[in-house]
Amino acid sequence: MQIAVVLFDRLTALDAVGPYEVLSRVPDAETVFVAEHTGPYRTDTGSLALTADRTFADVPRPDVVVVPGGPGQTPQMDNPVLLDWLRAADAHTTWTTSVCTGSLLLARAGLLDGRRATSHWLALKALDDLGAEPTGERVVFDGKYVTAAGVSSGIDMGLALAGEIAGDESARRVQLLIEYDPQPPYDAGSPQKAPAGLVAELRAHTRHPQ
Amino acid sequence: MQIAVVLFDRLTALDAVGPYEVLSRVPDAETVFVAEHTGPYRTDTGSLALTADRTFADVPRPDVVVVPGGPGQTPQMDNPVLLDWLRAADAHTTWTTSVCTGSLLLARAGLLDGRRATSHWLALKALDDLGAEPTGERVVFDGKYVTAAGVSSGIDMGLALAGEIAGDESARRVQLLIEYDPQPPYDAGSPQKAPAGLVAELRAHTRHPQ
Repeated sequence: MQIAVVLFDRLTALDAVGPYEVLSRVPDAETVFVAEHTGPYRTDTGSLALTADRTFADVPRPDVVVVPGGPGQTPQMDNPVLLDWLRAADAHTTWTTSVCTGSLLLARAGLLDGRRATSHWLALKALDDLGAEPTGERVVFDGKYVTAAGVSSGIDMGLALAGEIAGDESARRVQLLIEYDPQPPYDAGSPQKAPAGLVAELRAHTRHPQ
Repeated sequence: MQIAVVLFDRLTALDAVGPYEVLSRVPDAETVFVAEHTGPYRTDTGSLALTADRTFADVPRPDVVVVPGGPGQTPQMDNPVLLDWLRAADAHTTWTTSVCTGSLLLARAGLLDGRRATSHWLALKALDDLGAEPTGERVVFDGKYVTAAGVSSGIDMGLALAGEIAGDESARRVQLLIEYDPQPPYDAGSPQKAPAGLVAELRAHTRHPQ
C-alpha cells in the first residue's frame, strides 16, 4: 500500500506529519512525500523544511493520498500540476484524504462536490463555497474521501483510517506506540470550546487558516 | 526567545514537530532546528527528512531546548558533540525539554540526576537506570526541566510550556489555531489503557522505543 503525502511551500508541518506518523506504521505501508519537484519545502513558519523524495510524475497511482494545508494552500489553488495530479491519482486511490485546508485543494480539484467534508474551522465557509457540504465533525468519512479539521486533527484521522485499512488491533497498536493519550492542559481546541473573544479575534485577524 | 529543536538521524518526526508546531506560534519566538551538521536528517521510517538550518556551534545560547527521541537516540548516547552542547546550552536555558526518548539524552548528559522526569513508556526503566526518577505522568515539570512521554505527548508539553512562557491566553490561542481538540477513535494510548496482550507484545518485541 503506497501512501503519498503531498508537500508544497508554506504548508503547516503537523498537517502532514500527524497522519504520516500514524499511517507509516501500518503494516506493509510505503509512505512517500511527493511534490511538484523533489527537495526541501519550507513550512509556514519558515523555520523548518520537509523533504519531498518524489515528484508527482514519479507517483502516478498511490493507494492513499494525504493533502495537508497551511497558508501555502492558497497559491496551490491555481497550480494545474498539483490539481491535475490530484484528479488523476484520485481515479485509482482507495482513500483520498486531507487535513486542515488541504480539503480546499481537494474541493478545487472537483473531488468533494456535494460531499460531506471538513477543514480548519476558519475555512469552513470557503469549503462550502467550493461545493462541499461542511460539517462540524473533526474527521469526516464520505465514501473514500476522508477530511480532517485543523492541523492536529490529522492524528485522529490517521488512526481512524489505520483502523479501516488494517483493522482495530493494528490501529490500537499504533496509538500505543505513539503514546496518543492526549491530555491538553487547556480546553480551547475548537471554536465551541474556546473563549468567544478569542474566536472572534481570530476570525477577524487571521488571513490564512493555519 | 530562541527555541532550539534538536535533530539527528532516525529521530521520530512527531517528537520534534509536535512541540515545534505549538512553540513556534508563541509571540516573539524564533524557532531553529539545530544538529551536528546542517542539512536534512532522515526520520525513523526513512521516508521523510527534516532540515537542520544551524549547527550546534551556531546556536550556543538558546532560551529553550527541545530534544526529540526515536530509534536514532541510541547512537547519540555516545555522541560527545551533542552531549557537550546540551550541557553547555543548558547552563543558560530558561527551559530544557524533551519528548519521548529525548529524555534519555538529557539524562545521559547528566541533566536529570535525581529529577522527576518521563519518557516513552517503553523507556521508563532506561530513564531510571540513568539516574532520573521516572513518573507515570504525560508531561513532567521539575524546575526548568520539562519532559514528555512518547511521541504525541510533545503537543501537550508544548501547550503547557507555552502557557508558562506566554500565559494562558496565548496558549489557548495556539490550541485553537491548531484545533487541538483531540478525539482519538480508540482508547489505547497508554499501557494502562491498551489491551494487556498488546502491551506485552510491544514490551517483548520493540527494541527501540519510538
